[in-house]
Amino acid sequence: MTVNKDSWVKTINLPAPSLQDNTADSDRLINFLKQHLHAHRIFIDYYSLQELPFKLRAWDYGLRCVVIKDPYFDQWYLAGISDPLKDRCFAGVAVDLGTSRVALRLVDLSSGKSLYETSFDNPQLKVGPDILTRVHACDQPGGLQELTQSIIREMNQQIRAACHVCGLENTDLYFMTLAGNTCMTHLFMGLAPKWIIREPYIPVTNTPDVERAAVYGLDINPAGRIFIFPNIGSYFGGDLIAGILHSKLNQGKDPAILVDVGTNAEVVLGNDSWLMACAGAAGPALEGGVTQIGMMAGPGVVDRVRIGPEPHTIHVRTIDDLPPVGICGSGMIDLAAQLFKVGMIDLRGRFVPDACGQKLHDQADMPFLEVVSAKESGTGRALNIYQADLDSLVRSKAAMYTILETITESVGLSLDELNTFYVAGTFGAYIDPKSAVTIGMLPDLPEGTYKSLGNSSLEGAAQVLTSCESLNRIEQIKTQITYLELNVNQQFMNRFSAAKFLPHTDLSRFPSILHDNSTISS
Amino acid sequence: MTVNKDSWVKTINLPAPSLQDNTADSDRLINFLKQHLHAHRIFIDYYSLQELPFKLRAWDYGLRCVVIKDPYFDQWYLAGISDPLKDRCFAGVAVDLGTSRVALRLVDLSSGKSLYETSFDNPQLKVGPDILTRVHACDQPGGLQELTQSIIREMNQQIRAACHVCGLENTDLYFMTLAGNTCMTHLFMGLAPKWIIREPYIPVTNTPDVERAAVYGLDINPAGRIFIFPNIGSYFGGDLIAGILHSKLNQGKDPAILVDVGTNAEVVLGNDSWLMACAGAAGPALEGGVTQIGMMAGPGVVDRVRIGPEPHTIHVRTIDDLPPVGICGSGMIDLAAQLFKVGMIDLRGRFVPDACGQKLHDQADMPFLEVVSAKESGTGRALNIYQADLDSLVRSKAAMYTILETITESVGLSLDELNTFYVAGTFGAYIDPKSAVTIGMLPDLPEGTYKSLGNSSLEGAAQVLTSCESLNRIEQIKTQITYLELNVNQQFMNRFSAAKFLPHTDLSRFPSILHDNSTISS
Repeated sequence: MTVNKDSWVKTINLPAPSLQDNTADSDRLINFLKQHLHAHRIFIDYYSLQELPFKLRAWDYGLRCVVIKDPYFDQWYLAGISDPLKDRCFAGVAVDLGTSRVALRLVDLSSGKSLYETSFDNPQLKVGPDILTRVHACDQPGGLQELTQSIIREMNQQIRAACHVCGLENTDLYFMTLAGNTCMTHLFMGLAPKWIIREPYIPVTNTPDVERAAVYGLDINPAGRIFIFPNIGSYFGGDLIAGILHSKLNQGKDPAILVDVGTNAEVVLGNDSWLMACAGAAGPALEGGVTQIGMMAGPGVVDRVRIGPEPHTIHVRTIDDLPPVGICGSGMIDLAAQLFKVGMIDLRGRFVPDACGQKLHDQADMPFLEVVSAKESGTGRALNIYQADLDSLVRSKAAMYTILETITESVGLSLDELNTFYVAGTFGAYIDPKSAVTIGMLPDLPEGTYKSLGNSSLEGAAQVLTSCESLNRIEQIKTQITYLELNVNQQFMNRFSAAKFLPHTDLSRFPSILHDNSTISS
Repeated sequence: MTVNKDSWVKTINLPAPSLQDNTADSDRLINFLKQHLHAHRIFIDYYSLQELPFKLRAWDYGLRCVVIKDPYFDQWYLAGISDPLKDRCFAGVAVDLGTSRVALRLVDLSSGKSLYETSFDNPQLKVGPDILTRVHACDQPGGLQELTQSIIREMNQQIRAACHVCGLENTDLYFMTLAGNTCMTHLFMGLAPKWIIREPYIPVTNTPDVERAAVYGLDINPAGRIFIFPNIGSYFGGDLIAGILHSKLNQGKDPAILVDVGTNAEVVLGNDSWLMACAGAAGPALEGGVTQIGMMAGPGVVDRVRIGPEPHTIHVRTIDDLPPVGICGSGMIDLAAQLFKVGMIDLRGRFVPDACGQKLHDQADMPFLEVVSAKESGTGRALNIYQADLDSLVRSKAAMYTILETITESVGLSLDELNTFYVAGTFGAYIDPKSAVTIGMLPDLPEGTYKSLGNSSLEGAAQVLTSCESLNRIEQIKTQITYLELNVNQQFMNRFSAAKFLPHTDLSRFPSILHDNSTISS
């Protein structure tokens, strides 16, 4: 066997058959692998079985093989074999299946080296931008099939293109891992998501089997397997489990927290002996498409805002330095933080006319502020931020803070006891924690406490491609986790109301903001 | 659960989900079945998974389902579900995959009732009548694929036709069981048989997995499974294991013997604590196509012969009472026994000219006997039996007797200690044991000791369709069996030489023949 015990790729040498030892080829291989992997059962895929007798003899009973463990049972699948004397690439593909974007990465299963990475729009966006629209589309005849086929088709095309770039065939892919939320996973598998969104919120499956990828119509090696991250329930998907895996949240002694903001804010708190998770609607104002000028991070999108002293000139930075076309969630947070710092909005998030000056306008009794003029904008139209957008942002940040406060207190901790605060996803990659603290969305912890995890779902999926052990970690995460139902009771509402101020009613919680910002008055 | 614990069909009622118990549909079903089947793992086929959420709700969490156990591991496969309030037929199909003939039977999995039975020529006959020709055909490019496709295609057509007769769809079939010799099984599965026939005689697999039938291109329910009987080696196939299962050889206290005669004579001896098996070339003279007038049992084929007192008129009985066209193995044995009884052949199997009279002719120094005249024959030509045919028959019967003697003595028994002697296959169905004893092919045991098993391979396959327990029996058979290599040493040759007389050199072994036949002289 190879030295790297954690790799799915093993090199083995079988004893050759004889009249005294005339076990069949596959049973010979099975018996050997059983012993060496300490496994109860080895399943040799039919497709591998067909070539096995020829290859065993051609390679003198030596083999490099990909064996993939079933995490739910003591069973391994033989997915591929190759000549042990040739350095053929066994590749795998990790996928983060997002509602809006899908990211995929090709990985060399032996070396663990990343070969190529790409991302693309989820083609289901054409049917509906959000989960609910897509779930409802499944009520139409053929609706589910259409959604499933569109993502599988696009995935196959992207995989083929990725393989082409790396000089690989799609049949060189023997293992695929996929992390997504519960609904996206169901739509991918062709399983009805109907009851996920209806009380009592029941998925078709919590733990998809390690199936042949071909079962789902995926064009990788016919014996290649797919591991779809398990979900813990309707609102706690495989993407978050992949994120926990990547963050190693459950491997440290000190409690740490992980936040992933999308349509929902998903929060996990814990250490190596316990994990507490919850999710709540905290993100709408931070997602593209909600505010008039809001959009997902992309070229020309404002991701940083700085406002100078009077006359409060607004400086924006855009992705790729292109003329501004919109603003993403992290840009919104930056903007709100800056507006608040210079006093252009007050502690309730309302425009302060004196400070805003000529930039403040009014449209049908709705005040708005011109952030970028029509002349400077990339769209030819001014980019305006409305009072309603700010109100929505304040509600979102209040919800987020309340969720963080609630989950932390549920385990008897306070927020300032957290030494590590992971922020995942695109949001985590672009956000300036200082700004999020300024508006009281995130607690006032020392800089350096906040760590951006990048695409933790993709990273977690990629980790499974190169580490047998990671499957055990996932099982561990599943058993450790307790899901905290956010009861919207009086206490929650009280906390929420208190958090609806910038940064908070209780200013003592935000000493660094109090110190920075002379304009704050209680 | 249903009362019939041995059936693969179970009726269950799941607890309905609630906010307090929001496990996913499939995991709910899995957990329930695990507990009730005492199983480690339940595998819900992807195809069942797709319909599961709709059906569970439509049927108020009640289900009739087909669950099939993996005999090699503590795992069950859910192959099909139906409304517990409707009496829909879950059907299965059992197949005896013979080198020449294939027999199949449709069975109701719940009631165990046989629905339909048919048999057809193995379409691989077109490539070659015997195993060796077919194995060699696989050395040509595409040869294996052609053989595999021909049997799968024919099987699908026959299954569809059989379903049509029973008013079923092919998707009503959820379980298929198949028993065949090791080569036929490999050709069916598309696995190279090349090394089965070459020292050290290695099959690709001894234990085919309980796969989805669709993997082999079989047109039954897409979630339907196929159980292919395991083999113990190149010369001990699944058909014989199915025969042992049907005979219940391994369930009695008294040792019994099972003989299956085809190209090889396959012999199993044993009881509930041990089984001894061996195989040897004993059948050539008994198979169709070997003697000039020999053929497989079928319409117009001679299966019984009686010879009157002088002038020794030969009376033949044919299948379906048609004009005679040939003679099958059991007919040959009957003919030889009758010729011997009336003194037309001597104890070495040679024609006795005086007794044969005008029926004896000569052709290029090869004596032959006219059994049926051209006028009475169904072919317009006389049916003749040559001295060479008789010589060949004598060698075959001697080999058979020697094998029986050898295997029995190997366990310290003598042939007359056997109370039950099963004769399987077409041979078993047509043979007159008395005639086989007369020529010394089978030992001289009391009438009633010999029992025809019919198509024991098909019966064994059908048994698995309706009995969970039978899979355990098969595993038991596999572990109990010891394979006796027939060493063709001096002792074997001595025994063989002694058995080349009719009935045997040692006449004391055949007291009933000695008593019957006044013409015998030592």
